[in-house]
Amino acid sequence: MATVTAPAKTSDEITAVKTADERGAGNIRQLRITKQSQAYWRITIDNPPINVMGPEMVRQFQEVIEAIEADEQLRVVVFDSAVEDYFLNHSDFTAKLEDLTSMPPGPTGLPPWPDFLVRLTRAPVASIALIRGRATGNGSEITLACDMSFASREKAIISQWEVGVGMVAGGGPMARLPELIGRNRALEVLLSSEDIKADQAESFGYINRALPDAEVDAFVEALANRISRFDKWAIAQTKRLVNTILPSDVEVGAGWDACIASLGRPAAQSGIKDLIARGFHKPGDVESRLAYHLGQLPSR
Amino acid sequence: MATVTAPAKTSDEITAVKTADERGAGNIRQLRITKQSQAYWRITIDNPPINVMGPEMVRQFQEVIEAIEADEQLRVVVFDSAVEDYFLNHSDFTAKLEDLTSMPPGPTGLPPWPDFLVRLTRAPVASIALIRGRATGNGSEITLACDMSFASREKAIISQWEVGVGMVAGGGPMARLPELIGRNRALEVLLSSEDIKADQAESFGYINRALPDAEVDAFVEALANRISRFDKWAIAQTKRLVNTILPSDVEVGAGWDACIASLGRPAAQSGIKDLIARGFHKPGDVESRLAYHLGQLPSR
Amino acid sequence: MATVTAPAKTSDEITAVKTADERGAGNIRQLRITKQSQAYWRITIDNPPINVMGPEMVRQFQEVIEAIEADEQLRVVVFDSAVEDYFLNHSDFTAKLEDLTSMPPGPTGLPPWPDFLVRLTRAPVASIALIRGRATGNGSEITLACDMSFASREKAIISQWEVGVGMVAGGGPMARLPELIGRNRALEVLLSSEDIKADQAESFGYINRALPDAEVDAFVEALANRISRFDKWAIAQTKRLVNTILPSDVEVGAGWDACIASLGRPAAQSGIKDLIARGFHKPGDVESRLAYHLGQLPSR
Repeated sequence: MATVTAPAKTSDEITAVKTADERGAGNIRQLRITKQSQAYWRITIDNPPINVMGPEMVRQFQEVIEAIEADEQLRVVVFDSAVEDYFLNHSDFTAKLEDLTSMPPGPTGLPPWPDFLVRLTRAPVASIALIRGRATGNGSEITLACDMSFASREKAIISQWEVGVGMVAGGGPMARLPELIGRNRALEVLLSSEDIKADQAESFGYINRALPDAEVDAFVEALANRISRFDKWAIAQTKRLVNTILPSDVEVGAGWDACIASLGRPAAQSGIKDLIARGFHKPGDVESRLAYHLGQLPSR
Repeated sequence: MATVTAPAKTSDEITAVKTADERGAGNIRQLRITKQSQAYWRITIDNPPINVMGPEMVRQFQEVIEAIEADEQLRVVVFDSAVEDYFLNHSDFTAKLEDLTSMPPGPTGLPPWPDFLVRLTRAPVASIALIRGRATGNGSEITLACDMSFASREKAIISQWEVGVGMVAGGGPMARLPELIGRNRALEVLLSSEDIKADQAESFGYINRALPDAEVDAFVEALANRISRFDKWAIAQTKRLVNTILPSDVEVGAGWDACIASLGRPAAQSGIKDLIARGFHKPGDVESRLAYHLGQLPSR
Repeated sequence: MATVTAPAKTSDEITAVKTADERGAGNIRQLRITKQSQAYWRITIDNPPINVMGPEMVRQFQEVIEAIEADEQLRVVVFDSAVEDYFLNHSDFTAKLEDLTSMPPGPTGLPPWPDFLVRLTRAPVASIALIRGRATGNGSEITLACDMSFASREKAIISQWEVGVGMVAGGGPMARLPELIGRNRALEVLLSSEDIKADQAESFGYINRALPDAEVDAFVEALANRISRFDKWAIAQTKRLVNTILPSDVEVGAGWDACIASLGRPAAQSGIKDLIARGFHKPGDVESRLAYHLGQLPSR
């Protein structure tokens, strides 16, 4: 993965590993790596209008994690979004499921999305989620896989919405949330499928902190710059020792398998269909107030 | 366990599985199952005047869990109380200990009370504790075994009072509290034997949320109704995966054994005797302000 | 360890196990045991001017834990400080590292400092940290090893500062913090190396409670007296069962090994040297605002 080689010392926006042309027609970059310095990268999620995650974005997350693992200077990565109102959204249900399930497993043996997430938790660099807008499904899952997370008090909403539509979440929240917020609140989050505002998420310990929208960027920038000046070996060793708390890959994989199984059941298929009929998957009230609309669906 | 068969679609109060006559003379129902719908049951604890738990109530909890496990439509159960000022109280120390210890173990191999609790944690339905009044000992333990808990800010008090009287708690709080609120606060709760108000319990993460007394019923009703419309398979699979955080049955059983052992020691025997002499076990100040009175007992 | 034998019933200040003369010229007592009663001891840390921990203090912590383990009447110990502005500080970097690493391991097989900490977590008595002033490095680590901790809202600061100077922490925070405050906040604390005020520490669950400086002493005194009247067997059994949450000794030992390894690397050696050049290790702004000064060091 020598494709991210630009020895940028100042801000230098580059594509996620390969150019759009290299990836083939129609594929544009949905993840951008910007090197704030050799030690500090931003990974910006940019798939307008609502930042859904389809197979192509999953492939780009694979490229991103390979670049992160391969770089010897890198100490901090910050994940943020270029799409207003959306940090990272649910999966793309207009894509063919086979395009996702046919992707080869990553080095952990897990499918690409959980593979990315578990490698991010173990990468020898600090990772930070900067959340503004909705972090629905995958957005919550990448937050839980990051080492830290900071959210706009006014504009961040976090949600594991899957049970509400008849699905099981696939990117590890059953494995990660109980350790973070306790079994009782993990089950509230997962079984209620509610939209959780930043203050509530902070109170639960779901995110590190909720900060005023006008302050969260400066806070994260200062923290990332601070850590980017610390010794990489000390960061990596400290994180390695903290990581004994991580769930096993097998447990994360079991969640993924349950998610895929749920997608083949009538409950989820009719739930997603009903939700799309209401306006899901395009900008508007269903995406903005997903929890409300989940409560309006027919009983399954 | 085909005894709960009424296909009630609206509120339909039934006895806990068997009628009082079937259970024998003198046994009245202390637990009532009310079917709000086929998918949502209320379990109401009703043993006035102070909701102590004796062997008969333990037997009825066994019947309740068998009904919960056997029902294929059920998705949510809410535990509440019909007794003012008491959600669920400590055990009945006027009953013969042998009536409790001679009961056969449940399917898990544990004695009936811990057997009920661990089966509740694994049941394929969402369980919610609605706490108004004191949740002392057993009341805290059922809260910890439920998937979620919501408490009246003004009227809920939660307490693991056992160490204060020379006992060890028997229903799993040593196994469950550290995961939920951290080892430091678990030891504060257990070793101080203090009365903990709802706001403090929420702040610790002991309960999901404290809500104004005027709002907690509506909150729980809305949440229970919401979950009762979601797919049972998705609820059950999600809960199954969260449950990897649960302590082992062996660990819960070790706590029960320590509890029974503590009851045979002079410290607990004199502690309970002293407390009864002060007015314990009947309505009044000792029950209402148990933590204060524990602090007034002679040093052991 | 029959050296602490004074059957003091009232406050009775004694030296930590051996007199200064017995320990040899130049060694003064840095830890004092004061028996508030037979059941309740205070352990006061007193190494002015800034309560650093050198090899002699580590030796005295070994003596303290042997006295705690050997006493059959003891039920509560409270750790506090006699040095203004410092609860317990980082290690003494003016001492020879060999004086620390050449000390024989304790009964757990771990070196003396982690040996003390893991034995404190398992001692059959309740342990409480009363934090006023900075708890930096070792001060945080003893807090995490105590059963409970209460801090002055105005005057307590807690910090794992090690990564900021190129080190890895040695006394178990990587093993203990994630269980207590979640992986995300543990990594924030450890990788940011920030100074954490009491309110923030309480909000994270790092400490049990932050209390107004004018109230924290009375709160701890009342709690310690309360527990000191409870049955020792019940305290010990309850704590034993809670302790299944503890990390293994091997995991704590791995953290210690990483700490010692970090001290041999150029990053930490230059970091400590740079910090000393700024005024570290003596009263003043570097010690008072350590996190700020860590951020001013050259990038490593």
